[in-house]
Amino acid sequence: MTRGRRPEHSRENILEKGAELFARNGYNATGLKEILETCEVSKGSFYNFFENKEQFAVEIINHHKSIEFARWEEQMAALTGTYLSKIQWMINDEIRKYEEDLDCTGCLLANLTGEVSQASPLFSAAIRASSQEVLSSIEEDMQICQDEGTVRKDLSARELAEMIWNGWQGALLQLKVERSAEPLRRHVTTLFKLIEAPDPKG
Amino acid sequence: MTRGRRPEHSRENILEKGAELFARNGYNATGLKEILETCEVSKGSFYNFFENKEQFAVEIINHHKSIEFARWEEQMAALTGTYLSKIQWMINDEIRKYEEDLDCTGCLLANLTGEVSQASPLFSAAIRASSQEVLSSIEEDMQICQDEGTVRKDLSARELAEMIWNGWQGALLQLKVERSAEPLRRHVTTLFKLIEAPDPKG
Repeated sequence: MTRGRRPEHSRENILEKGAELFARNGYNATGLKEILETCEVSKGSFYNFFENKEQFAVEIINHHKSIEFARWEEQMAALTGTYLSKIQWMINDEIRKYEEDLDCTGCLLANLTGEVSQASPLFSAAIRASSQEVLSSIEEDMQICQDEGTVRKDLSARELAEMIWNGWQGALLQLKVERSAEPLRRHVTTLFKLIEAPDPKG
Repeated sequence: MTRGRRPEHSRENILEKGAELFARNGYNATGLKEILETCEVSKGSFYNFFENKEQFAVEIINHHKSIEFARWEEQMAALTGTYLSKIQWMINDEIRKYEEDLDCTGCLLANLTGEVSQASPLFSAAIRASSQEVLSSIEEDMQICQDEGTVRKDLSARELAEMIWNGWQGALLQLKVERSAEPLRRHVTTLFKLIEAPDPKG
């Protein structure tokens, strides 16, 4: 059945389409039939690639994380200015994207995290690991900003990172509730005022 | 069939049991059969009380909100100290409860908000209204704290309220992910450091 399929039906391609599907509908509400249809893959091919839906979800989470980390790193490297101003640019760019995606299908991790209570141990562990990696990455960013003197130092980089990550995930929920990116935009504006280093001129 | 039922199968009782069910399993994953079983009510009685599952969910959201607002007000009134210290006591009390409820079944609004994208307009509107009322309530609290001088004034009470609500909802997600109340506890500690008024002694 898969003979003659075009090369885009690769493992990676299936993972990307699967990520969109899970982000839009959640893990529990997505059945295998829908996965096969959306990913344009036969049952046989799917099971050649992935053990089951759970394993598929775990690979999606990891694949999505790798792509996002790589994209973030590449874009940050192309920007100039203080490290904090680069982060601000990146976050405003994210918000611009969310304005065109009010169902927030782009935020796979935030969407799947809401389902973690009903999830299997394997799935939960993948979400937890991904979330921890994001946190560590934000922590490193905050450390750099503290070192360059743009972010306050009376709180640890870790404390700031947790605050930022929690606020971001909560603000994404509000984006869905309000069907507007304005709450997210206001949140980020407030956040930067709260974390910035005190003005040395007082 | 409902003849001889004990008086606890009142409308209010059904709403409370329904709230627990929705908070635990979400809206979409909960079927009418489960509702009838959990609420110990016949199909006929249920439809006497509520038009359908959607209407039931809307009434649950509103009922739950009323109960929580009343409880919060009553407990606040019984505390002494600055308004900010009372809020801190209340929040720490919430965290203590969540420590015994790591599936976070107590936070109905946060749990249902995650489903808002797939929800009907009526259901979404109820979540939006409830969320706005919580926000207004936090805004009033922040205003009082700013007036008593315990919370910084360089951000509006509304900006602080949105920040607090987003962070709280995101931190509840982390509680589920980490199966621990520690992320929530750390979040709140950081939050209070960020919002407190600068020490007048410098």
